[in-house]
Amino acid sequence: MAPMSATSPAASPAISPATSLWERYQAHLVRYKDMGIWLDISRMRFGDGFFAEMNGKAEEAFVRMKELEAGAIANPNENRMVGHYWLRAPKLAPTADLRDEIETTRESILGFASMVHAGEIKGGMARFSDVLLIGIGGSALGPQFLSEALGAAKDPMKIHFLDNTDPDGFDRTFAKIKSLSTTLAVVISKSGGTKETRNGMLETQARYESEGLSFAKHAVAVTGRGSELDKAADKGGWLRRFPMWDWVGGRTSVMSAVGLLPMALQGLDIDQFLAGAAAMDAKTRIAKTSGNAAMILALMWYFAGDGKGMKDMVILPYKDRLVLFSKYLQQLVMESLGKERDLAGNVVHQGIAVYGNKGSTDQHAYVQQLREGVPNFFATFIEVRKNRDTVPFDVEPGVTSGDYLQGFLRGTRSALYENGRDSITISVPRVDAFTVGALIALYERAVGFYASLVNINAYHQPGVEAGKKAAARVLALQGKVRAALQAANGSPLTASQIAAGTGSDPEDVFHVLNHLAANASNIERSDAEAPGHETFRFR
Amino acid sequence: MAPMSATSPAASPAISPATSLWERYQAHLVRYKDMGIWLDISRMRFGDGFFAEMNGKAEEAFVRMKELEAGAIANPNENRMVGHYWLRAPKLAPTADLRDEIETTRESILGFASMVHAGEIKGGMARFSDVLLIGIGGSALGPQFLSEALGAAKDPMKIHFLDNTDPDGFDRTFAKIKSLSTTLAVVISKSGGTKETRNGMLETQARYESEGLSFAKHAVAVTGRGSELDKAADKGGWLRRFPMWDWVGGRTSVMSAVGLLPMALQGLDIDQFLAGAAAMDAKTRIAKTSGNAAMILALMWYFAGDGKGMKDMVILPYKDRLVLFSKYLQQLVMESLGKERDLAGNVVHQGIAVYGNKGSTDQHAYVQQLREGVPNFFATFIEVRKNRDTVPFDVEPGVTSGDYLQGFLRGTRSALYENGRDSITISVPRVDAFTVGALIALYERAVGFYASLVNINAYHQPGVEAGKKAAARVLALQGKVRAALQAANGSPLTASQIAAGTGSDPEDVFHVLNHLAANASNIERSDAEAPGHETFRFR
Repeated sequence: MAPMSATSPAASPAISPATSLWERYQAHLVRYKDMGIWLDISRMRFGDGFFAEMNGKAEEAFVRMKELEAGAIANPNENRMVGHYWLRAPKLAPTADLRDEIETTRESILGFASMVHAGEIKGGMARFSDVLLIGIGGSALGPQFLSEALGAAKDPMKIHFLDNTDPDGFDRTFAKIKSLSTTLAVVISKSGGTKETRNGMLETQARYESEGLSFAKHAVAVTGRGSELDKAADKGGWLRRFPMWDWVGGRTSVMSAVGLLPMALQGLDIDQFLAGAAAMDAKTRIAKTSGNAAMILALMWYFAGDGKGMKDMVILPYKDRLVLFSKYLQQLVMESLGKERDLAGNVVHQGIAVYGNKGSTDQHAYVQQLREGVPNFFATFIEVRKNRDTVPFDVEPGVTSGDYLQGFLRGTRSALYENGRDSITISVPRVDAFTVGALIALYERAVGFYASLVNINAYHQPGVEAGKKAAARVLALQGKVRAALQAANGSPLTASQIAAGTGSDPEDVFHVLNHLAANASNIERSDAEAPGHETFRFR
Repeated sequence: MAPMSATSPAASPAISPATSLWERYQAHLVRYKDMGIWLDISRMRFGDGFFAEMNGKAEEAFVRMKELEAGAIANPNENRMVGHYWLRAPKLAPTADLRDEIETTRESILGFASMVHAGEIKGGMARFSDVLLIGIGGSALGPQFLSEALGAAKDPMKIHFLDNTDPDGFDRTFAKIKSLSTTLAVVISKSGGTKETRNGMLETQARYESEGLSFAKHAVAVTGRGSELDKAADKGGWLRRFPMWDWVGGRTSVMSAVGLLPMALQGLDIDQFLAGAAAMDAKTRIAKTSGNAAMILALMWYFAGDGKGMKDMVILPYKDRLVLFSKYLQQLVMESLGKERDLAGNVVHQGIAVYGNKGSTDQHAYVQQLREGVPNFFATFIEVRKNRDTVPFDVEPGVTSGDYLQGFLRGTRSALYENGRDSITISVPRVDAFTVGALIALYERAVGFYASLVNINAYHQPGVEAGKKAAARVLALQGKVRAALQAANGSPLTASQIAAGTGSDPEDVFHVLNHLAANASNIERSDAEAPGHETFRFR
């Protein structure tokens, strides 16, 4: 090509469609230049009047957010304040006591981690080398995402997770830990009564004891003051207890001790993490849609799904480190927004389904459907500008693996747009503690705004109780079924017979019987064509 | 409760709603008793006439499947046979040559793995301890799922993956490998030209060489005969080459060398894996809906989404080992079914979105939305009957962690059903090679049947080409942009200027410029308020 003068204007006599997209791109681009974070909504097909139409709802959302940040009871159903924004800006906390607690907790986490690293706190003779985090949902997903995004092989401690109540899963995790004697168990449960976590803790305690180790000397708790777990840790003389507060929800707890303690133990930079979130909060706290990335994101979600969640949110970070971000957002978005009723009590069945893994890998999995199939989604591309921290390597002259990654991102964004599929693109300079803190803060506030736009409470989760209660009934039934088999003294019984005798549902009984027969060596199952004719007996 | 006689009938004078569900459960339960695999569709609210209505379509699907298994050109767009069913039943392959190739490949995989384990094949002085699998999509997801589902800490070799073109991702994986000298690189690409895999291979090769190791002495290829990769491996004198065939699609290649070689190297039982799939095929090959779990599954998907993919498929295995099953199915289902046109050429935009992780963990993430929010999904619970292989541990008297897991599964199934959310439940006795083979075969055939029900080609992926072509354009543009900057000799240029000079889209140029500026130390970016006014120059 011919050399160009730096001052020659771009020759573009008519506005071609491409030029209009370039103009649309520039007109709507939000850039936080000091953070290097950009939000591009040019590939969302909202019309010219959209922001004006939404202005009233946005204004209302700004007002509610301001009240929430000032300490209003923003979670009316649970009569609680919602204070995760204070965790990265303690001076905004509504009382001096809260401020102190946040600051003291951060300091004690840093102090504890540095003593652990120095070997001043240890369980036995040697320095702690591993962390075993026992928690589920909001008490595990944040630490999992952070360790995947920010961890490195050279970190001072390696982290493992028990995040379920699967006995085989427990066995597998224990098999990966080299030595429990140098493993610090971190038990995390806000309520202190989560059964999965309680079970993981009991199994872990038994493991330590079976190896002749004191669990208490290897354990810390992160929990609400006075909870069951808090009391057990206190009574048992555990190494340390760190607080959780009722004004921090599980899914936004990653900047409390829940996330900060594991980070600090892994040697990750909690101050940069908090600073990134605080910086994003400062930008998105400004009560004006223009330039507010969180509000614009929320409005795009509203546009995409018509304020009814009619489109799934597909998260496509083009970076291996961010592979768990979609899982993190799945919880943050779906648990916050998936609600039956709005704040006025109307049945609305809100929510936005979230899924995704990473690009360009997912192009080889489901981008086929995204481009050609059911148009029931909008995509969010996450671009990380920095390829790698090590020396560049050319896979072709002048072309790196990272250039390909960028090419696939841009190529897929175009290919989707051409076929009428909308997308958002977020660009970040690199994956580090600051940027990850900022991304989390961006999505937390976008979720809060979106909840206001559709008039729901983002801070409770009434729907999970039904499943827990039903589970408790199944466990209670198991006791009754076992008793019935024992009482029958070796005679075979059908599910219906036991159901009639215990006033239970025969199908429920049947499931319990099959579960028992598969796991208890003293319960025998006799086959029959129909489930109703099968018998079970004690032997 | 009072002891019951084994012969007393269940006292149930009137049909309560619970009893009807129990009857519905029994009426529709499909049980493969020899395999221990059950399919429960009682919580899908199809009406009495549904199966009769669908009978014509189902019959047609059986006919097409029979033709496909007999070697018809079932992938008309690519003029190929579709033969993944032969991989586990070579005697069904349409020619003796194919039969031989399948059998010989299986034998040579077993022979190769046993020589690797014995240290008879090695790269340097010591036995191979690690496998580094380089592949993407269909060439990585299967092995990833299998190693997660079936692997154990005691396996003879540890497996790692390069499944993207992220340079930082490469660095991280290499940091986890103890020694390349005892690492066997397995490069998998059917076409042999997949750029991500090519890039991963080149970076890996350079690593070996930088450590003074011969890559060829540490590498094997799995690829189509005569492919670019096949030629390079042949010419380079790699340890071994294993074949891929054009009649096996990437997403159904897990029972070819793609999946079997990594399995065998990890010490997993490939014969049981194939046997499980063959057993499931034998059950679901029978051309009758009643008792055919694959057809019933496909019909349930049809019912759930009205044959248009209107409901997402949420996969909830209650077992840690199965956490990647949803990701595996995401590819199998979405790439197979996400199609723009039907076989008659009509625009139909088919597909079913798939997501999920594991229970009960996901109950703490998004079951809130599943129960109360947008009713845009149906769930599939996967129950694993066997709790663990080690000694049971009581977390309460007579209650194990596994009883809780079962309770949560049953509780959530009930809680969803109560709120009008449908679900399927699949029960398997345990997670082993046989069962996993059977599950994969079940879903492969269900996908094939569903494609027939909605009249699409499940075996091509025309939609992924557009993204690849667009990516190639971006990479070509990068060369032009760099040349323009160089030609400008240090003078700053805007994106529009370069676009005008190269006949490109200014926004595309702008993205390339920002990507270069972030990664090439000799390209300088000058900030401006609007993207169009920013300049870039060579220094």
